[in-house]
Amino acid sequence: MRGVVMYGPRDVRVEERERPSIIEPTDAILRLTASCICGSDLWPYRGDDPTTQPTPMGHEYVGVVEEVGAEVHVVKPGEFVVGSFFASDNTCEICASGYQTHCVHRQPGAASGGQSEYLRVPLADGTLVATPGMPDADLVPSLLAASDVLGTGWFAAVAAEAGPGKTIAVVGDGAVGLLGVLAAKQLGAERIIAMSRHADRQRLAREFGATDIVTERGDEGVARIKELTNGLGAHSTIEAVGTQESMMQAIRATRPGGHVGYVGVSHDVELPGLELFFSGVHLHGGPAPVRRFLPELIDLIWNRTINPGKVFDLTLSLDQAAEGYQAMDERRAIKVLLNL
Amino acid sequence: MRGVVMYGPRDVRVEERERPSIIEPTDAILRLTASCICGSDLWPYRGDDPTTQPTPMGHEYVGVVEEVGAEVHVVKPGEFVVGSFFASDNTCEICASGYQTHCVHRQPGAASGGQSEYLRVPLADGTLVATPGMPDADLVPSLLAASDVLGTGWFAAVAAEAGPGKTIAVVGDGAVGLLGVLAAKQLGAERIIAMSRHADRQRLAREFGATDIVTERGDEGVARIKELTNGLGAHSTIEAVGTQESMMQAIRATRPGGHVGYVGVSHDVELPGLELFFSGVHLHGGPAPVRRFLPELIDLIWNRTINPGKVFDLTLSLDQAAEGYQAMDERRAIKVLLNL
Repeated sequence: MRGVVMYGPRDVRVEERERPSIIEPTDAILRLTASCICGSDLWPYRGDDPTTQPTPMGHEYVGVVEEVGAEVHVVKPGEFVVGSFFASDNTCEICASGYQTHCVHRQPGAASGGQSEYLRVPLADGTLVATPGMPDADLVPSLLAASDVLGTGWFAAVAAEAGPGKTIAVVGDGAVGLLGVLAAKQLGAERIIAMSRHADRQRLAREFGATDIVTERGDEGVARIKELTNGLGAHSTIEAVGTQESMMQAIRATRPGGHVGYVGVSHDVELPGLELFFSGVHLHGGPAPVRRFLPELIDLIWNRTINPGKVFDLTLSLDQAAEGYQAMDERRAIKVLLNL
Repeated sequence: MRGVVMYGPRDVRVEERERPSIIEPTDAILRLTASCICGSDLWPYRGDDPTTQPTPMGHEYVGVVEEVGAEVHVVKPGEFVVGSFFASDNTCEICASGYQTHCVHRQPGAASGGQSEYLRVPLADGTLVATPGMPDADLVPSLLAASDVLGTGWFAAVAAEAGPGKTIAVVGDGAVGLLGVLAAKQLGAERIIAMSRHADRQRLAREFGATDIVTERGDEGVARIKELTNGLGAHSTIEAVGTQESMMQAIRATRPGGHVGYVGVSHDVELPGLELFFSGVHLHGGPAPVRRFLPELIDLIWNRTINPGKVFDLTLSLDQAAEGYQAMDERRAIKVLLNL
């Protein structure tokens, strides 16, 4: 089968890989319908994360169940499913509390190799959620978004306690930040301030529910958020970048007692203890437990209440994956869908 | 009047100071009944925080209202009151949300000079809470504790979301940590693990509601907490020290999705972003909004439901303050009450 492999910085190849097969009785094999490129795939692409060996890429996927192991009882061959990027049993105490990305049996390995024609998913019953039927083609991008980028933006909004009467600031105008805007809107936020200096992303932010746009960054961005909130700061801030600057911007933009939901994978971030202490904010985040939200998100997509698939502004075939990485790296595309 | 002044590391003097008077119309002057020495007073005492000029000490106090300014309408002369260490108006949007230590008109200055016979308290109506009447002498230590150390331990337990069915770990066996145990118990926690290696503090922890004692520290302490919680970690951890080691111990002792409530004033703490990200914990803390909890705490003390005054294991006269600092520094005393 064809699949994307990262060899090193800016060296992404589509090549013939061995088609996966059942290893554990809790596995399922999916024939993928669509996959995509994640903002986090750009870390190794840019050399910010090392690539020590050729690495199959991709961890966002939707597709049809081709085969299941002997101990898979919920998910059935022929079903269309949405997966999450960490495999989880969905039954342990941690899963039951809604933190499937920290499942005691979690397998981050489920995440590897999703940019390919077939994928083995461990702990299939705990990881995959079937849609009510075969989706119309126009729903596929949104279902694909649910498998990571929407689920992550949603978790950020939940972690930031977005809700009625609240003002939400969103740091980061990538796909996760934009879908954080969508999530905050769905959760009933009164005012949503998107921080972005790109016209196309501002447009999508507004479409998803942003009421204000702030183009300033860093301390100036913080000052602007305070101006917009009677000097107090946002009730809730979504952090969807993962740098020192973006984390501090999020913490400083939030009022005392407010909530920062952070989902950008922290790179070289050190939070100064004393400043955090005197900020008085709540801080919560990490790898999003997408599985917690999948049933609800699939429902919202199936009923056409939300259309998160709009974040895909470039659609390519799998063989064009290298061009997709480049387009995202150069910020020519917000997010790239790979058709299979 | 007599008052405690810090001149530099290990140089604490009791000397004649000018008796305070009303400056702002929202001020009250208190004749203090009792004061005490805070763990945070040990930072300058040990030279960990610089003392650049002779500094009046003390920010925990109870006493009788002597005089009020023209705009003080709630608090009345003759009333016995408990104060909080930051003055707050208790009416702004931040106060209304329960974060009086971040009041838009806050005056940390209310905190200075409480180890003395008289004290000026700004924003008296928003800062002070009167007791139902003149307290019996045996209630005074507990009411004094409410003004900071109990309120702080209580906030830590609330920030850690201590409650029914939960296992709470407590890092720090100082007065705040011990009262965090008491708070967790009152909030209905099922199991409370106190981390302490001192017999007297262990005893008090058990009296306040600890069900388990862990004597190990650092990574060993974390391993022990995990052993006691099926490998998962505590649901909630109270951090009441404020060092890099104690913060990391608290974060690592907490299960994913769990809550760390931290109230130790962070000194030279840098939180590693990536570890925090993958821990999946909630982090909340800072200077405790004691004012939020004062009415409830006074009620619990007045009804003799709780007896937080037990943390005072050494009672001295104001003139013996230097001996009190020394006893706390050498950990011969958990907390020192200064009679006035």
